[in-house]
Amino acid sequence: MDIKKLVKPNIRSLRAYHAEEIPCRVKLDANESPYGVTVLKSVKTNKYPDPEASELRRLVAKDLKVKSENILHGNGSDELIYNLIVTFGGPVLYPVPTFSMYGIISQTLGEEKYEVPLDENFDIDIDLTLKAVKKIKPKLIFLSSPNNPTGNCYSPDKISKIISQSKGLVIVDEAYQAFSGKNEFLPLLRKHKNMIILRTLSKIGLAGLRTGFMVADKEIVSEVNKVRLPFNLNSLSQKVAIDSFKDKQKMRLQIRTIVSERKKLLKAMQKMDGINPYPSDANFILFRTDDANGIFNKLLKKGVLIRNMSGAVSSCLRVTVGTPRENTAFLNALRQVL
Amino acid sequence: MDIKKLVKPNIRSLRAYHAEEIPCRVKLDANESPYGVTVLKSVKTNKYPDPEASELRRLVAKDLKVKSENILHGNGSDELIYNLIVTFGGPVLYPVPTFSMYGIISQTLGEEKYEVPLDENFDIDIDLTLKAVKKIKPKLIFLSSPNNPTGNCYSPDKISKIISQSKGLVIVDEAYQAFSGKNEFLPLLRKHKNMIILRTLSKIGLAGLRTGFMVADKEIVSEVNKVRLPFNLNSLSQKVAIDSFKDKQKMRLQIRTIVSERKKLLKAMQKMDGINPYPSDANFILFRTDDANGIFNKLLKKGVLIRNMSGAVSSCLRVTVGTPRENTAFLNALRQVL
Repeated sequence: MDIKKLVKPNIRSLRAYHAEEIPCRVKLDANESPYGVTVLKSVKTNKYPDPEASELRRLVAKDLKVKSENILHGNGSDELIYNLIVTFGGPVLYPVPTFSMYGIISQTLGEEKYEVPLDENFDIDIDLTLKAVKKIKPKLIFLSSPNNPTGNCYSPDKISKIISQSKGLVIVDEAYQAFSGKNEFLPLLRKHKNMIILRTLSKIGLAGLRTGFMVADKEIVSEVNKVRLPFNLNSLSQKVAIDSFKDKQKMRLQIRTIVSERKKLLKAMQKMDGINPYPSDANFILFRTDDANGIFNKLLKKGVLIRNMSGAVSSCLRVTVGTPRENTAFLNALRQVL
Repeated sequence: MDIKKLVKPNIRSLRAYHAEEIPCRVKLDANESPYGVTVLKSVKTNKYPDPEASELRRLVAKDLKVKSENILHGNGSDELIYNLIVTFGGPVLYPVPTFSMYGIISQTLGEEKYEVPLDENFDIDIDLTLKAVKKIKPKLIFLSSPNNPTGNCYSPDKISKIISQSKGLVIVDEAYQAFSGKNEFLPLLRKHKNMIILRTLSKIGLAGLRTGFMVADKEIVSEVNKVRLPFNLNSLSQKVAIDSFKDKQKMRLQIRTIVSERKKLLKAMQKMDGINPYPSDANFILFRTDDANGIFNKLLKKGVLIRNMSGAVSSCLRVTVGTPRENTAFLNALRQVL
């Protein structure tokens, strides 16, 4: 597959902004202030961040068993979705219901978008999707797995089929992968040059950092890198993210707790009359009820805020897995409300 | 002036992403992890940043004597330039030499760009510029003042003329304003609805934060806000920026030191044979020499890194004002090299 041919003409002729790191004793080249503030040890607030996020990308690459050249960093994976659409343009195709930003960013950038409905089990309707791919010839296909807000993973077989029959790029957005216990898509990258994986630190305790990553063939990374703003990831987030990769033990334990809490939560919800919770591979549970708006408002009156998804999935609410104490508070409130 | 008519049609019909802040006791709506890491006191890394950066915008508004609704926050002012071009499109016009990102981002977004040369004193050639404005009808005009890399401010009279004769928006990028001792453009905002001012924390000790601001009529802010990614400014940068606005005394002293060092630096450079330094209202000095590449390389061999601008301004180099010690090191090295 010729990646260059997929790139929009105005990007094709663009060169990546090159913020070269030149070793020196006195650095007076970048109009930085010589004076900073002390916030985090080893972070010089007065200096621009490492534009390439080299150390962070190296650690992510090591963690995912790929090379640094296969990793691109974003100010959240939102920004990478933005950058992908700027680089390749539309049409953009994605199954619905799903993460709202694929559609919002497509519209923001004036690119055509096509929504293909998931089947009644929230799985990919493969015939419908392949037909749409053939007809619409999307430049980009976004597949969120585990899917937000439905919580389920797609099967690698179905995604492989879509990748094989697409002349554009297929992006598997694995924002919630850590909670799925599955890692089936990363190995597919070796087989498919036109596949991209998105990961983020936002769901595993670092949402405040706005740090996401794209994993892809180095040619794709190099094209998307052209449209990235040079200093998109600030120094503080880089530093905290680096530290989190150096000590993943604590994060792993927290993820394990969240997964075990999700299982407890699902079991308790399955026992309740009047709601139908869906199994989840993510850190949230979607559930159907007869009166989504009513239950949402009654829970809120009890001080419990969940997400009303009934605009996107009829009669559905979505609850994030919290601490054991928060989950108990939610379950108690829900029981009273039902 | 009807701002809505200037907005690109795909943005006009877009609504801003609304990340509502709903008060509650148990918050399980946003798929955040319940567990974070301790980095900065009062920053919850596991929670998404305040999408509206409300406290920071309030402090900036107070500082600039405008309202919060007149301020939009960017992940660096780079991102605001990006957002402006996404919202209004091209043609984009700017005098050259200037900050390279106006051109780079225009090309990235596939919008036409027009460059008007500055006069021989690096001032705006008003006749040439007004002629270009009339002919090209730019949607956006970017004017960097103090201008990077030339260091001079433009006169408010000339800029007022351009604003009055433009049917698009005029953006005065005041990244280096703090070093100019001038504040002539902010008051013009009241007179001209089609004027926008950009400010940044990057040059005054906080480049690592990537935090910039746009000041404009609330209607402009509201349109550009539609294309802003919801959580574009991370929590750590918001917190450090807020703290810096609460205690501006230290920063003011540092700026005063930099300005006084700039004056010393200029005086010393004016006494040297073989270079022609230009007066500066910013935290850098541009200077012309017979052999820009040679001097750049010889300085670097002595461990002093400055910026070779000869690609943009023939035979010119640019040095950032550093600490007194760094400036002395630069001057000594330059003397030896000349």
